[in-house]
Amino acid sequence: MRIAELSQTTGVPVPTIKYYVREGLLPPGELTSPNQAQYGQAHVRRLKLVRSLIEVGGVSVAAVRDAMRSIDEPGTDLHTKLGATHYLLGPAAPLSVGAEDLEQAQGEVETLLADLGWESVRKNPAVAVLVQALATLHWLGQDGYAERLASYADAARDAARTDFDVLGTSDLADADAVIESAVVGTVLGDVLLAALRRLAQEQMSAAAFRPSGPASAHPE
Amino acid sequence: MRIAELSQTTGVPVPTIKYYVREGLLPPGELTSPNQAQYGQAHVRRLKLVRSLIEVGGVSVAAVRDAMRSIDEPGTDLHTKLGATHYLLGPAAPLSVGAEDLEQAQGEVETLLADLGWESVRKNPAVAVLVQALATLHWLGQDGYAERLASYADAARDAARTDFDVLGTSDLADADAVIESAVVGTVLGDVLLAALRRLAQEQMSAAAFRPSGPASAHPE
Repeated sequence: MRIAELSQTTGVPVPTIKYYVREGLLPPGELTSPNQAQYGQAHVRRLKLVRSLIEVGGVSVAAVRDAMRSIDEPGTDLHTKLGATHYLLGPAAPLSVGAEDLEQAQGEVETLLADLGWESVRKNPAVAVLVQALATLHWLGQDGYAERLASYADAARDAARTDFDVLGTSDLADADAVIESAVVGTVLGDVLLAALRRLAQEQMSAAAFRPSGPASAHPE
Repeated sequence: MRIAELSQTTGVPVPTIKYYVREGLLPPGELTSPNQAQYGQAHVRRLKLVRSLIEVGGVSVAAVRDAMRSIDEPGTDLHTKLGATHYLLGPAAPLSVGAEDLEQAQGEVETLLADLGWESVRKNPAVAVLVQALATLHWLGQDGYAERLASYADAARDAARTDFDVLGTSDLADADAVIESAVVGTVLGDVLLAALRRLAQEQMSAAAFRPSGPASAHPE
């Protein structure tokens, strides 16, 4: 395919694709004439990966370049390839998704709240955050995560139960102390859970994708 | 106690305490002479709450002032008091904690990794993030969360298992696709889990702390 079709398939604008090629994030297309190049499915996949790292993961262009070099190293196993990017990930950046994706996500959240009997929390600003994250997953073609929303809700509820166990140990007549504990637990709990989830992911990646042999962490 | 002792007890500098009083976040002390005020335990609790909201929760001074007004409204139940702050919470800001808290947190993380058999993930930058978050909890006197680290690890592992289920549906021979899915799932999964946890927390707060009557969300 030509660069215009590559752009259409991936949603990445043509000037951005050219920039990625110049910066070494994407291999150049095969020249079919002095000013025309052809791109294949490998370019589509690599471009989607690069876009996800930069736009969703908040990774710098230089770090993506280094990661792509590690991934393309011959003989690298999947665990090591995963690790080349996993340690780089920053916080999520908001992407502007389409109305259709938003609508689908809204429906999914409605269904979830109804299934869980959580209808009274509709005014919580976290509902809009949840809808936006789900819509972004759909927009990126990662529907598998949205399909497992109920499993994530289970994990989140288990964490919230632990939060509530801690609150229960404070003097409930002292509202300031309860609220202080809830504020700190909610905000720092996000950090705890995000860090622990990354450790669990690496552990599972090592078990599933690393050839047996001497133990080694992701990037050496 | 005098303002100097209030400062020592809470770790909040005297000029900051004076600023909070001027801004209406903290009630003034009782004047015992024209330029000396006395503070009590209620000030200690309120000051710790205000500090947690501003420094840990990233909440603005104006928003804290509004929240304190709702909390002090006579006849408010604990669920509504919690809600007055819960919807305001931003991301965690790093606090500079003491060496002792860091050491304690390091020991706890070491124990956790050993208990879970996760020793091979020690190079993951999430380990340092985890240590910092735990140390901050200790520094804030919220040891209850750190004591339940294993429960949070269980919840995080359940979430990571779901992440891995999704990865397993992609073509494992296509490393770019696997990594793209992992990047997107890791980063947006943080957002999903944080949002779902807040919804679960509100649901539990309503069940535990709201007097029975017509259903109402946190802030009306």
